[in-house]
Amino acid sequence: MDASRWAGESGEPSVSPRRRGAVLERAILGSALEQLSTVGWNGLTMERVAAGAQTGKAAVYRRWPSKEDLVVDALQAALPDLRAAVDHGSVREDLYQLCRRIRDAMFSKPGFALRSVLHECDSAAAERFHGLIFQKVIEPSARLFDDVVSRGIERGDVRPDAVSDLVRDVIPGLMMYRSKVCGSEFPDGDLARMIDEVMVPLLRPYGR
Amino acid sequence: MDASRWAGESGEPSVSPRRRGAVLERAILGSALEQLSTVGWNGLTMERVAAGAQTGKAAVYRRWPSKEDLVVDALQAALPDLRAAVDHGSVREDLYQLCRRIRDAMFSKPGFALRSVLHECDSAAAERFHGLIFQKVIEPSARLFDDVVSRGIERGDVRPDAVSDLVRDVIPGLMMYRSKVCGSEFPDGDLARMIDEVMVPLLRPYGR
Repeated sequence: MDASRWAGESGEPSVSPRRRGAVLERAILGSALEQLSTVGWNGLTMERVAAGAQTGKAAVYRRWPSKEDLVVDALQAALPDLRAAVDHGSVREDLYQLCRRIRDAMFSKPGFALRSVLHECDSAAAERFHGLIFQKVIEPSARLFDDVVSRGIERGDVRPDAVSDLVRDVIPGLMMYRSKVCGSEFPDGDLARMIDEVMVPLLRPYGR
Repeated sequence: MDASRWAGESGEPSVSPRRRGAVLERAILGSALEQLSTVGWNGLTMERVAAGAQTGKAAVYRRWPSKEDLVVDALQAALPDLRAAVDHGSVREDLYQLCRRIRDAMFSKPGFALRSVLHECDSAAAERFHGLIFQKVIEPSARLFDDVVSRGIERGDVRPDAVSDLVRDVIPGLMMYRSKVCGSEFPDGDLARMIDEVMVPLLRPYGR
């Protein structure tokens, strides 16, 4: 008993080494995310990340050989999983609520971090993040959009042949374009207009 | 007679100094555009531009105090004016032809130059180009889109309340998004699908 307490106080792992590693990893990833959302991709250094996680640079490099590797894992861990879209009774309301969730994710800490990466890093480094963006952002959003539309087709407020890859990209396209060109942060009113003026007319059944 | 010929051959202006200035200015602007489309915004220097125009650095700085000023003028001079959209008999064909012209402008030399500027320069410098982009790209495209849609409303293949600022941004949004996310260069077939799967269903009159 005394011996094991002593081991813990001296800095030796008091739990299994693997568990100690996971805790430290989380601290390093959290520190990397913090750096991304404060000093951005260009300002982030392995030294700063180590300091923020109260560890040494070697502990960071042992796990992640490069800044890119570390940032991919930090974003991977932090970007939220988009849960299934609840049925709100109409395609209009389903899409509106889906857009609000996507907007909130864009303006969350990991969302800012992701955008700082895409905005600042050169195109060679940006390549590294494409897989991550597809897996964590583009594919899950597209799947949720498809769920909402399938429900609309069953319900009768979406025409049966409405969906294509291009139709799926209309909302992300508008959000990217307006955020770039006029710095829009998509207040609820703008999202509602996007649904009412673009998506509902686009998806509406024939004959309406 | 002899005297004026002699003056021309010696390198003195054989026409008015003002005209000589305009010729030199065009050479400098052309050289700046060439640099943008070969070495990009980051690679462009006043020295290189001067060398390309076969003049000295002082001649460039006398007219343009900074790289930003020079590039704004070079793009301003080179970006084509989008002429009025010809009536092709249907909103489908009108929009398709309009998109082809916008795509061709995007992939022209000044189009590449503009995108290299937007991609590479930092956000403080990018601010300088916003006015230019609105004046030469966004506003004229929106005006042509409105012309096509007004014609469609008169013709009866567009519903009367179809247009809003958001509807106007659907095509630019899709083009920006797909060019960023999947590097699309918009072959004619993709443009046709964009019109057939998104714009025609979105704009179609009620009851169809």
